[in-house]
Amino acid sequence: MKNKIAVIGGGSWGTALALQLHRNGYQVLIQDVSQEKVTEINQEQRNSFLPNIKLPSDLKATTDLKEAVKNAKLVVVVVPSHVMRTVAKGLKGLLNEDTIIVSATKGLEEGTNLRMTQVLKAELFDFEDRILALSGPTHAEEVVLDHPSTVVVAHRNKNLAQRVQDVFMSDKFRVYTNPDIVGVELGATVKNSIAIAAGIADGLGYGDNAISALVTRGITEIKRLGVEMGAKAMTFAGLTGLGDLVVTCTSQHSRNRRLGHKIGSGYTLEEALDEMQMIAEGVKTTKAVYSLAQELGVEMPIVNQVYQILFAGKEPKEAVNDLMLRGKKHEIEAVAKMKAW
Amino acid sequence: MKNKIAVIGGGSWGTALALQLHRNGYQVLIQDVSQEKVTEINQEQRNSFLPNIKLPSDLKATTDLKEAVKNAKLVVVVVPSHVMRTVAKGLKGLLNEDTIIVSATKGLEEGTNLRMTQVLKAELFDFEDRILALSGPTHAEEVVLDHPSTVVVAHRNKNLAQRVQDVFMSDKFRVYTNPDIVGVELGATVKNSIAIAAGIADGLGYGDNAISALVTRGITEIKRLGVEMGAKAMTFAGLTGLGDLVVTCTSQHSRNRRLGHKIGSGYTLEEALDEMQMIAEGVKTTKAVYSLAQELGVEMPIVNQVYQILFAGKEPKEAVNDLMLRGKKHEIEAVAKMKAW
Repeated sequence: MKNKIAVIGGGSWGTALALQLHRNGYQVLIQDVSQEKVTEINQEQRNSFLPNIKLPSDLKATTDLKEAVKNAKLVVVVVPSHVMRTVAKGLKGLLNEDTIIVSATKGLEEGTNLRMTQVLKAELFDFEDRILALSGPTHAEEVVLDHPSTVVVAHRNKNLAQRVQDVFMSDKFRVYTNPDIVGVELGATVKNSIAIAAGIADGLGYGDNAISALVTRGITEIKRLGVEMGAKAMTFAGLTGLGDLVVTCTSQHSRNRRLGHKIGSGYTLEEALDEMQMIAEGVKTTKAVYSLAQELGVEMPIVNQVYQILFAGKEPKEAVNDLMLRGKKHEIEAVAKMKAW
Repeated sequence: MKNKIAVIGGGSWGTALALQLHRNGYQVLIQDVSQEKVTEINQEQRNSFLPNIKLPSDLKATTDLKEAVKNAKLVVVVVPSHVMRTVAKGLKGLLNEDTIIVSATKGLEEGTNLRMTQVLKAELFDFEDRILALSGPTHAEEVVLDHPSTVVVAHRNKNLAQRVQDVFMSDKFRVYTNPDIVGVELGATVKNSIAIAAGIADGLGYGDNAISALVTRGITEIKRLGVEMGAKAMTFAGLTGLGDLVVTCTSQHSRNRRLGHKIGSGYTLEEALDEMQMIAEGVKTTKAVYSLAQELGVEMPIVNQVYQILFAGKEPKEAVNDLMLRGKKHEIEAVAKMKAW
């Protein structure tokens, strides 16, 4: 039996990552605040977020954070973004001094607009140099089935990134490393807002042509924001940028796309949220990204229209038309500056 | 009534473009070699490639190339890539000296590996400075329904590109310009090979995670080839690169993806082609791109595996595993070279 790993958060992604680590031979303990979830996992070997999957009988869960992280060499945090601060505070004093922390949560903290590893660092300064981000264009539903998937582990320290890469890596679960933690976390987050736009276009009855234009122009505006915030442009061409955007905008599994679809079909935001059982991170993200873009003076036409629809009562059809009717232009800002012209 | 425009090729994309030009008020005449197709259009106001669409009664077709292009200010060529040379030869001596030619055909000529505008230029040298490419992430099926779509018109001469932009542009059909005709044509072509790979992964039962990894890594290898052939890297981040790749890899409308799906499900190439009524350009493209990549020394792992499956009898499952099992790596070549490491 290999070392112990704690996975904080028994949602679908947390459980999929726990299962992947269990497959790799680690002793994995899941922590979740819900006694019901813990009972499901321990007594029924299942998680209702991942129907039809039988979990191994020695993959256990607990509600007790202290028990979960005790002697864990690695702690993987996979909680909704709005509870990251609370979890980070809760971890204080519980970790061994050499413990490595991986955030697999996507999102920005409301109010502060901090990335998830920034929130962890703010509360766990002693671990500042050992907090990584894991992200990728991956559905939990497919990882549990051991279908081919790819993720990225990001940290400036190459050796550390490679250690975590080795822990997660398998034949079907490919792990790449990237030093640009800012770009990796931002791509994974902002894409949720573009995915809402894709869902809206779909709900309005528009097809692949509109979705593909949103993906193409969406990655451009994500990159524009990211570079302004210190990320490397190339990261957005990778798995956590473009890759994640593609899967989120085109897949039926995506909650943000489903939310957008309801709104494009005529639901209000409240009605759409009421009908969704799971959290659609993109709603909070849109608010945060809109404010960041304003603050930094970055042009983000798609996020801006999604914001107008969600929070300012704008008609979806009118918003899509406003996007399409922006002055005819050269294809890409940089292209227009090419020497050829 | 505005000027006359000839559309050479009455396939689904040719007919969709003809309809778009007709909506914009032009007098459009379609030319097709099939008498049956011409009769359908003229007498039944329909095209069997676009079921359920009623064409306007004054959108006419002819089998006569000379009649079609007579006095046409603009000639749009939308024929299968393997007949482009014949059509170009046929156009010799039929055009007014100020006629503008637009190629909306994707592909490379077999044997020569030339792009379609290069084939046109080789036969019609007097028009060398007035041959443009039109391309984009657009399904004919959606353009005919007047759903929002975006395309790119490419030519080094900005004024000329803008003139063609104005001819096609409408509220729902957005046209961008780009000086990089090499990049625009290559992106539109090579993507068909990646789309076959996406279809194969789908046919093997793999899901969104695999498709999104193929899109992300696919655009990287397309760009690598393109830059080697004189294209601008930025073009591949645009509508004709990434945009077209996304729509082709994720949409059920894509013939190349459907072909790949059959092969991933166990069909041989011959069986799969037999069942397809329309041409899957990606088969020829894979052969051409494979040979270009070898010649130029460009690493194209996905195209290489597709080639092995289509033409060397390799098992699809083995090919996908070989792709996944490439040594664990940093995310992107350029990222690995970042100063941070």
